[in-house]
Amino acid sequence: MLNEKLIQLKESVIHEATMVEEMIRKSIKGLIEKDKKNLEEVIKKQEGRVNKAEIDIDEKCINLIALYQPEARDLRTILMILKMNNDLERMGDQAVNISESALFLIEKPFIKPFIDIPRMAEEASNMLKDSITSFINEDVKLAQDVVKRDNIVDNLQTQIIRELVTFMISDTTTIERCLHIIRISHNIERIADLSTNICEDTIFMVSGKNIKHFKKKDNK
Amino acid sequence: MLNEKLIQLKESVIHEATMVEEMIRKSIKGLIEKDKKNLEEVIKKQEGRVNKAEIDIDEKCINLIALYQPEARDLRTILMILKMNNDLERMGDQAVNISESALFLIEKPFIKPFIDIPRMAEEASNMLKDSITSFINEDVKLAQDVVKRDNIVDNLQTQIIRELVTFMISDTTTIERCLHIIRISHNIERIADLSTNICEDTIFMVSGKNIKHFKKKDNK
Repeated sequence: MLNEKLIQLKESVIHEATMVEEMIRKSIKGLIEKDKKNLEEVIKKQEGRVNKAEIDIDEKCINLIALYQPEARDLRTILMILKMNNDLERMGDQAVNISESALFLIEKPFIKPFIDIPRMAEEASNMLKDSITSFINEDVKLAQDVVKRDNIVDNLQTQIIRELVTFMISDTTTIERCLHIIRISHNIERIADLSTNICEDTIFMVSGKNIKHFKKKDNK
Repeated sequence: MLNEKLIQLKESVIHEATMVEEMIRKSIKGLIEKDKKNLEEVIKKQEGRVNKAEIDIDEKCINLIALYQPEARDLRTILMILKMNNDLERMGDQAVNISESALFLIEKPFIKPFIDIPRMAEEASNMLKDSITSFINEDVKLAQDVVKRDNIVDNLQTQIIRELVTFMISDTTTIERCLHIIRISHNIERIADLSTNICEDTIFMVSGKNIKHFKKKDNK
């Protein structure tokens, strides 16, 4: 039964998203607590698992279309899962990038305690979680809410970069560290963007209304 | 006939890719020649056209699957076009980002003439062009070649950032400009990455062999 298969497929996506959320959480926790083990786990173990999940879900989607030749709504759902799957894997890559920069940063003295970066990461993580929930529950209102929240993350990033520039100017020995923090902020910002994409696709799937490009995505 | 429709669909993708290539070319030309008009054209006109093309191609793909219920190879081709379409639109976003940073930079004195950035952009543009050619001609060898060339772009970026760091340290008034140049280099690097994705998908489509994740993508 296609219906059953679709439920299983959605469960695989939820599982993949949970793994990605954990990668994000660990990469930030590893940074703040200077915990190399957590960071290396993200890079060496968890990314591989998400990559496997991506390939697996991709294949399931293609097989479902080929076997069941689903129509209209079901077809759109499967195509959307294909896209989400790709977005989730990219978010896993972002978490790896964060962990890599964190590995550099934890070997050096911190410029100041991290406050905005974890806040930004929490916002982005929540956006990811809610984007998946909105998709599973076909909740357009929640999806719209997530799209709006992208601004919070963008503003936090602007604030972070502004502050880092003043650090760099007043003490050039901080430049390399600041560049890594900026890189981390970019990666968090992209996680938020990709969550926004998922929500836009959800809105499209449920309402048939394409809201893409009303708000720019992928803009950093 | 599905076959005819597929040829038309491929032509639309080629057309979309040509628009994106032009956006990249114009954003770099606008930067180097301090030509505001070119940069604004990328942001205000060309992005809109690519966005429209994306929505159009998306719909055509979904309709083809729904109407013709294509099997095996044709299905994979259409699903791949859906993905490429998404990647191309993202590259358009990268070109917009480059133009935005260029608009900032052309108002200030250049730190030094741009040499590596245009070189990097040319490499990435060629990768994009070749990725589309490899897809259209189902040329696995060319696709593999493009995947390998991603290193050239990565190395250029490392070199650019290293040089910029020395500028920032020796003259802190250059920091903001340097950050914009780094942003441009990131965006070029992502164009190369997304071209690599297209090639990986091409290899998968033709050979059924999934080479994704042997080389990391989206890694900046």
